[in-house]
Amino acid sequence: MDAQNDSALGGLIAFSDGIFAVAITLLVLAIAVPVLGNPPTDADLQSHLADAIPSIISFVVSFLVVGIFWLSHHRMFQIIEDYSRPTLYANLFLLMTICFIPFPTGIVTHYGQLATAVVFYAASMAVSGLSLALLWWVAVIRPAKAKSHRAMGQYFALRALGMSAVFLLSIPLALVNGGYARAAWFAIAPLYVVLGRLFGREVLTDLRPGI
Amino acid sequence: MDAQNDSALGGLIAFSDGIFAVAITLLVLAIAVPVLGNPPTDADLQSHLADAIPSIISFVVSFLVVGIFWLSHHRMFQIIEDYSRPTLYANLFLLMTICFIPFPTGIVTHYGQLATAVVFYAASMAVSGLSLALLWWVAVIRPAKAKSHRAMGQYFALRALGMSAVFLLSIPLALVNGGYARAAWFAIAPLYVVLGRLFGREVLTDLRPGI
Amino acid sequence: MDAQNDSALGGLIAFSDGIFAVAITLLVLAIAVPVLGNPPTDADLQSHLADAIPSIISFVVSFLVVGIFWLSHHRMFQIIEDYSRPTLYANLFLLMTICFIPFPTGIVTHYGQLATAVVFYAASMAVSGLSLALLWWVAVIRPAKAKSHRAMGQYFALRALGMSAVFLLSIPLALVNGGYARAAWFAIAPLYVVLGRLFGREVLTDLRPGI
Amino acid sequence: MDAQNDSALGGLIAFSDGIFAVAITLLVLAIAVPVLGNPPTDADLQSHLADAIPSIISFVVSFLVVGIFWLSHHRMFQIIEDYSRPTLYANLFLLMTICFIPFPTGIVTHYGQLATAVVFYAASMAVSGLSLALLWWVAVIRPAKAKSHRAMGQYFALRALGMSAVFLLSIPLALVNGGYARAAWFAIAPLYVVLGRLFGREVLTDLRPGI
Repeated sequence: MDAQNDSALGGLIAFSDGIFAVAITLLVLAIAVPVLGNPPTDADLQSHLADAIPSIISFVVSFLVVGIFWLSHHRMFQIIEDYSRPTLYANLFLLMTICFIPFPTGIVTHYGQLATAVVFYAASMAVSGLSLALLWWVAVIRPAKAKSHRAMGQYFALRALGMSAVFLLSIPLALVNGGYARAAWFAIAPLYVVLGRLFGREVLTDLRPGI
Repeated sequence: MDAQNDSALGGLIAFSDGIFAVAITLLVLAIAVPVLGNPPTDADLQSHLADAIPSIISFVVSFLVVGIFWLSHHRMFQIIEDYSRPTLYANLFLLMTICFIPFPTGIVTHYGQLATAVVFYAASMAVSGLSLALLWWVAVIRPAKAKSHRAMGQYFALRALGMSAVFLLSIPLALVNGGYARAAWFAIAPLYVVLGRLFGREVLTDLRPGI
Repeated sequence: MDAQNDSALGGLIAFSDGIFAVAITLLVLAIAVPVLGNPPTDADLQSHLADAIPSIISFVVSFLVVGIFWLSHHRMFQIIEDYSRPTLYANLFLLMTICFIPFPTGIVTHYGQLATAVVFYAASMAVSGLSLALLWWVAVIRPAKAKSHRAMGQYFALRALGMSAVFLLSIPLALVNGGYARAAWFAIAPLYVVLGRLFGREVLTDLRPGI
Repeated sequence: MDAQNDSALGGLIAFSDGIFAVAITLLVLAIAVPVLGNPPTDADLQSHLADAIPSIISFVVSFLVVGIFWLSHHRMFQIIEDYSRPTLYANLFLLMTICFIPFPTGIVTHYGQLATAVVFYAASMAVSGLSLALLWWVAVIRPAKAKSHRAMGQYFALRALGMSAVFLLSIPLALVNGGYARAAWFAIAPLYVVLGRLFGREVLTDLRPGI
């Protein structure tokens, strides 16, 4: 890896990190400042803030999902030393799905009581997860020379696929009850713990703390 | 290239990358969260999401165009080692047109069925493409000492001009039928392949993968 | 600290700095451009701009708080050379509370005359301050090997706790009078001076100017 | 300048560049997508886009002003190798005025025909220019050891003061005629040329191209 390439990779990482940082910060704009009557009253604002709790939970879920995506992306770019044209395009595709997230977040924030909103949100998140898994495949697994790199790539791709699977499985649940679907999303945390126990030991020993 | 200049160039790249990252992420704000009746219904939201499909396509087109602009800019700053005052100003002008893109994207997202919206969008994109070609000329082609740098600059300027030409040619099409104009924009992809086959071989052999 | 880890830390800092930069810049969106009658008059706009003064003060307060948080975060990442998984998660949690700030700022900007708005804002800020203190504990105080690092961590954690205490103590004040609560927030500046005099001497002598 | 301080300075520059990049990109949000009748017509959109021309000019002026501020800031951080606490605070104050710019830009974009809007915008810009001159004084002129650094600081501070003077002098003009005031802002370009001819020769010979 010569200096010029190092800087090309650095530029790609900076651009990607910038997009992740902006997209994650725009999520809060999905929580609308309520429009109160005139004159506004404390009781009014309190009831509107109480109504905003599901919106705030949606913000937290989206923040955590984009945060997990960023962490995975951050780890990927710790591992790779060079990138190919397909990696560039797969990365751009992932970034497009990340930039899109404020829209489904806005939909689920405003109309979270409707199954359609929950399905649309879950489907968008599943597409993001699948494109992250694709990027791991294109950027790490396929070109890996060292066995440990391939194993690491497979582990993180599996996590991305697991997240997508949770969102996809929550879609039929949403048609029954939106609340069940939203609750199901929190299954991502224990799933990650299980995946770490089953497949991550070897990989995580290789990783220094911090990665 | 001494260290101070290296850091000046680095600062310029970081600022430019930041603007690209923010502008590309703001595009999603052009897709408005629909305002439904009270109480909102699933049927209502479904029909509004179906109506939002052209908006989402506009988002994707703008994302890809800004993404291609960023890639071209990213490659340019791999090549150059120093920059002149005219480069600084040409770069600022390009960035101004990039920052402007969320506005025509919002226009075409809201009023894409009107020829005026499509023409305004295509004209804005053509101006961005022309200013990118101008930047390649000022920053790379004119000051190039190595023949390979000049050839690379010419190739990427040609691509930018080609993109502008597609958007300019779509303007008379839009006056006939807006859908034809939008379809024409997708001609940029095969055009790039053709340009790569005709003029890019030599240049792309010089480029390491990743650039 | 080897090069790879240095770059992992650099990526984490860049992502965090990006989020701080975006969140602090979004604050201005909380100040709404007034909607005037048709035709708009100078008298109208003047009275609306005069009415916007409390909003502008809220913007300034939020800007200073996020700025102080960033400075504290910036100093932390000057000190640490490595980071653990808990640091990663505590940092992500802090960033989530930072990304959230535009929402309470919007609430207090629009409805600052209501005690509920002031309480909600103060509580949000207190949570941010507590999560910053937590991050100092996890990232610096707990793993500190050098006594000077531990002292520095304790000093900055104390400042974050002090800021949280001011916001928490302003909550009962807000129930009496919102103006008193807002005035109390400005007590953060003298508090910082006092903390610096009492506990900061040794720490600040260790710090080179600029940190 | 040791490595740790270099990285502290680097972090400060990255944070500042990020804020400039976000603030300059948010300016476009001040140009509202027009709300047309139902069904919208081409004639309607054309007249609204024609009405938006003053808004677009305001966007261009704000973009150029923030761009000039960024260039000046970028040059400053090429020169300085270390920064003091007052520099940190003066920089934060400048960044606050930069973050504020989208608000007066929104005011002048919406109500540019009112003298009040033009005065408010000009006053805001003058404050930004004064805080930039202050930063040059605190960060470069006062601590300068080399005569050439002091001369450079004085030259750039003079330019910032000149810009502020133009905005301040446009305020009485705005009370007579808003159009005259806006036209006066374009006097900044020839003023910069004159200042360069009178005081900049020596300084600019010292600067390598690109700075």
